[in-house]
Amino acid sequence: MKKLIIACLFLVLLNSDLVAQSKIPKWDMFEITLKGPSKGNPFIGTTLTARFTNGNNVIDQEGFYDGNGTYIIRFMPTEEGIWNYVTSSNKNELSGKKGSLECIKPASNNHGPVRVSNKYHFKYEDGTPYYPFGTTIYEWPFQDENTKQQTIDYLKTSPFNKARFLAVPPYKDRYIDGPNKLTLFPFEGNNKDNWDFSKFNPEYFKNLDACVLQLKNLGIEADIILFRPYDKGKWGFDTAGQEVNRQFARYMVARYAAFSNIWWSLANENSFIKNMSDEDWDDLFKLVQEKDPYHHLRSIHNADRIYDYTKPWVTHVSYQYYNVVKSPIGTSILRDIYNKPIVNDEINYEGDIDSRWGQLTGEEMTFRFWNAVIGGGYATHGESYKTSPWISYGGRLTGSSPSRIEFLRKLIENNPIGYLEPIDHFYENNMLGKEGEYYLIYFGKDKLKKWDFVLPKRGLARGVKFKVDIIDTWNMTITPLNKTFEIIPMPENNYKFTDKDNSSIKLPSKQFMALRIYKVSDGGKVENDGKNELE
Amino acid sequence: MKKLIIACLFLVLLNSDLVAQSKIPKWDMFEITLKGPSKGNPFIGTTLTARFTNGNNVIDQEGFYDGNGTYIIRFMPTEEGIWNYVTSSNKNELSGKKGSLECIKPASNNHGPVRVSNKYHFKYEDGTPYYPFGTTIYEWPFQDENTKQQTIDYLKTSPFNKARFLAVPPYKDRYIDGPNKLTLFPFEGNNKDNWDFSKFNPEYFKNLDACVLQLKNLGIEADIILFRPYDKGKWGFDTAGQEVNRQFARYMVARYAAFSNIWWSLANENSFIKNMSDEDWDDLFKLVQEKDPYHHLRSIHNADRIYDYTKPWVTHVSYQYYNVVKSPIGTSILRDIYNKPIVNDEINYEGDIDSRWGQLTGEEMTFRFWNAVIGGGYATHGESYKTSPWISYGGRLTGSSPSRIEFLRKLIENNPIGYLEPIDHFYENNMLGKEGEYYLIYFGKDKLKKWDFVLPKRGLARGVKFKVDIIDTWNMTITPLNKTFEIIPMPENNYKFTDKDNSSIKLPSKQFMALRIYKVSDGGKVENDGKNELE
Repeated sequence: MKKLIIACLFLVLLNSDLVAQSKIPKWDMFEITLKGPSKGNPFIGTTLTARFTNGNNVIDQEGFYDGNGTYIIRFMPTEEGIWNYVTSSNKNELSGKKGSLECIKPASNNHGPVRVSNKYHFKYEDGTPYYPFGTTIYEWPFQDENTKQQTIDYLKTSPFNKARFLAVPPYKDRYIDGPNKLTLFPFEGNNKDNWDFSKFNPEYFKNLDACVLQLKNLGIEADIILFRPYDKGKWGFDTAGQEVNRQFARYMVARYAAFSNIWWSLANENSFIKNMSDEDWDDLFKLVQEKDPYHHLRSIHNADRIYDYTKPWVTHVSYQYYNVVKSPIGTSILRDIYNKPIVNDEINYEGDIDSRWGQLTGEEMTFRFWNAVIGGGYATHGESYKTSPWISYGGRLTGSSPSRIEFLRKLIENNPIGYLEPIDHFYENNMLGKEGEYYLIYFGKDKLKKWDFVLPKRGLARGVKFKVDIIDTWNMTITPLNKTFEIIPMPENNYKFTDKDNSSIKLPSKQFMALRIYKVSDGGKVENDGKNELE
Repeated sequence: MKKLIIACLFLVLLNSDLVAQSKIPKWDMFEITLKGPSKGNPFIGTTLTARFTNGNNVIDQEGFYDGNGTYIIRFMPTEEGIWNYVTSSNKNELSGKKGSLECIKPASNNHGPVRVSNKYHFKYEDGTPYYPFGTTIYEWPFQDENTKQQTIDYLKTSPFNKARFLAVPPYKDRYIDGPNKLTLFPFEGNNKDNWDFSKFNPEYFKNLDACVLQLKNLGIEADIILFRPYDKGKWGFDTAGQEVNRQFARYMVARYAAFSNIWWSLANENSFIKNMSDEDWDDLFKLVQEKDPYHHLRSIHNADRIYDYTKPWVTHVSYQYYNVVKSPIGTSILRDIYNKPIVNDEINYEGDIDSRWGQLTGEEMTFRFWNAVIGGGYATHGESYKTSPWISYGGRLTGSSPSRIEFLRKLIENNPIGYLEPIDHFYENNMLGKEGEYYLIYFGKDKLKKWDFVLPKRGLARGVKFKVDIIDTWNMTITPLNKTFEIIPMPENNYKFTDKDNSSIKLPSKQFMALRIYKVSDGGKVENDGKNELE
């Protein structure tokens, strides 16, 4: 009997179908590790895919070669229940491997990948709204462990829930020699004379893996930038040609798509890569779209030639255009042009360096954030102080804008309405909210002594009552006014309602003030005349 | 002998190939009139085209049915020399008609059709720059003869070189009964119960012919609007369906393409025609593009849903988005998005009517024009005073902006540089000109006491000397400063040059001031550091 049991156990162990089933929380990562051929060039010569099946849900996930004869398939289960898989490969030893996993309910801190919601906004896959308040730490994965840890520590207490960073470091002398010398590169080789662009360097990507995972654990979206122009021919990573680009993008997708927090940023300042045309970018977008079974967000960050963000594979607009955020109007126009979420991903940086893109005061950075948000979009922070080049290496946050950005984020996240939209936006230009219910009015650099209580009529009715909070966006105070405003149609104006007593709200003649106006009781019947806003 | 001559003459007269050849100035109109069948529905049943040949130049021009058995082919010769033609038709009596004309040099007041030039601008086909300073007279063709003549008289002395107007009147009670009752409609019939959408009404179009010709004779571009949403189901012209739309567009192109001053505006406020999709508009654009042998400019005027102006058949942007012209930034952004000329064709109107789109002061209209121009684009005027509804019926111009628009037009047309572009436009936002040579700086509503002489460095060199004129854009004065400014690189600033004496220019603390700064002598070698503007 004992012999039989041992024999059975042996059989069970031999048949990997029958080993104890993994329990993977929804949107977490399941990894299959296989041993296979290491000869030749497995990066190119070996294909490997696993088909995961859960009832009618079928996901084909490409694997990748991780060096030393190891192949990995990373899978993110998108539905609870049993998922069975079977591998296929052009190599017998990797093909026909079967197994299964049980996807259990998601971890409490994983809401799934971020999706576009309500045309101009975002939500996690579980329906929780996601408002991007991102930051920029381009080169943080390529710093020493202490700096990386410091970055993570600062991120933990920062208001930032998205981080933009490069998948490939920029060429800098700093990385060639001295304490920050890089020893790992995405391609095999260690300098421009001996790169083998047909082979990746798995050790390099293991570091990136850890970085993406750290962000995921903090609840921070990893807006990972696949290509960048910062090479100047020194390493030649951005002039290796479209075939290498395609291979790199495909490897990245195979390796990172199963991280729930991934966003694909095709490039930073894409048009500065002079040898690449918009058609090349189209091609890479389509490749990423095709290969990523989870449909993570996709965009590209422009330089002087603006990519056509109306193209169907672009999920949201990732803009660099500083003038857009000098008033709320810019973002509001971009919404109407692109019909997609607008993320102003580079609005210059708070800092004091000699380059003018890194000289914003904290006030100006905060002002631009507010403009983006009041325009119905989003913005991304960056900091470039001489003594603390956060946008480059991470490390310490020392600027004065992050706490104000946190104040704004809380205001937006905790509003009782949900997504807010520009109000009467063909005529107004500083008003976000929901018609009839909730208004955020931002005065920017105007130093008003008072504001007359006048609102655009849509959604309003005689007798509706409002309360008002005065917001100092810089000093981060919210001061409720001890008064209720009751509205009537504005005399001799077809478009406005006004407080029935013609009240004004006193303001302190300071920059960066805002109002929050919210309904406290209904009035008569809301009578919209049905006219379009333009009329 | 006499008999023989008469016989020969008779033969000559019989053979229309040999009648005395017409001499047509280049870009003027040559008309072939043919008699043909009048039975059935010639608008649909009869095809007619003439092929005009001049060496390698071949132009196929569709004809149109003009009623009473008359068919017309209108041709605009585009090259000097002999053009031969031969007609083809599905009706024998219209087919194989041959003839020729001699195209002679253009009339002195005809510079040819307007084309896009230098990506963001326009020129006539003969190379003369064309700067659109348009106006809006939607319904002028449908007014009584006195009003039409008055409109022409006012246009003669106005600054406007483009007129936007409807090819089909809007539905209004005014046109149903009373002194302005319309008797001519584009389709056969006279009310919604008896339209025959398969037949056009030639008499209606003869009136339009005359209107387009009158504008042409004044040197005014006819920005003719093919479709409009102003019907509310009363006549049903905008709900007749895409086949009728196609027929109408094709008839319009056959009839008007040979007028050198035609611009095709596919629609006014296109998205208010709720039953038409963007695909329908694409289809009409492509039809117009295909049928117009002269490639007149094509655009469409948006309402709430913005058409994708990047599409290849759109030659320029015809925008309605008031916030775009509230600062120069808007137009400058649109240039980078669309890479085409930006014409802000509706920026609200100067006037005093109850509707808020017609309540601009002359100052505000002028301000928006300046913003459009300083942003590197163009704008279109309109006037809607209760006592003088120019945008609707034409008649009299009574506003205060036209003279200021004329002042601006002269400033732009007479500048010594040619096309002006926004300068350092990712950072600056109120500067148009040519780097190193010529700067128009507009202060809008800022009431400056002084302006420090600081210019962006591109194109500049130590020792360059400038003169300055102070421009009061409202009072239309240009005041030369009796001083020369010599520049040096700005201390501690990588991006600017400044006057070597740190001079400021005194300004009168008034709104709507501008500066014109122009080089009077060269300095040292211009040293650009080659950095992109974004860096």
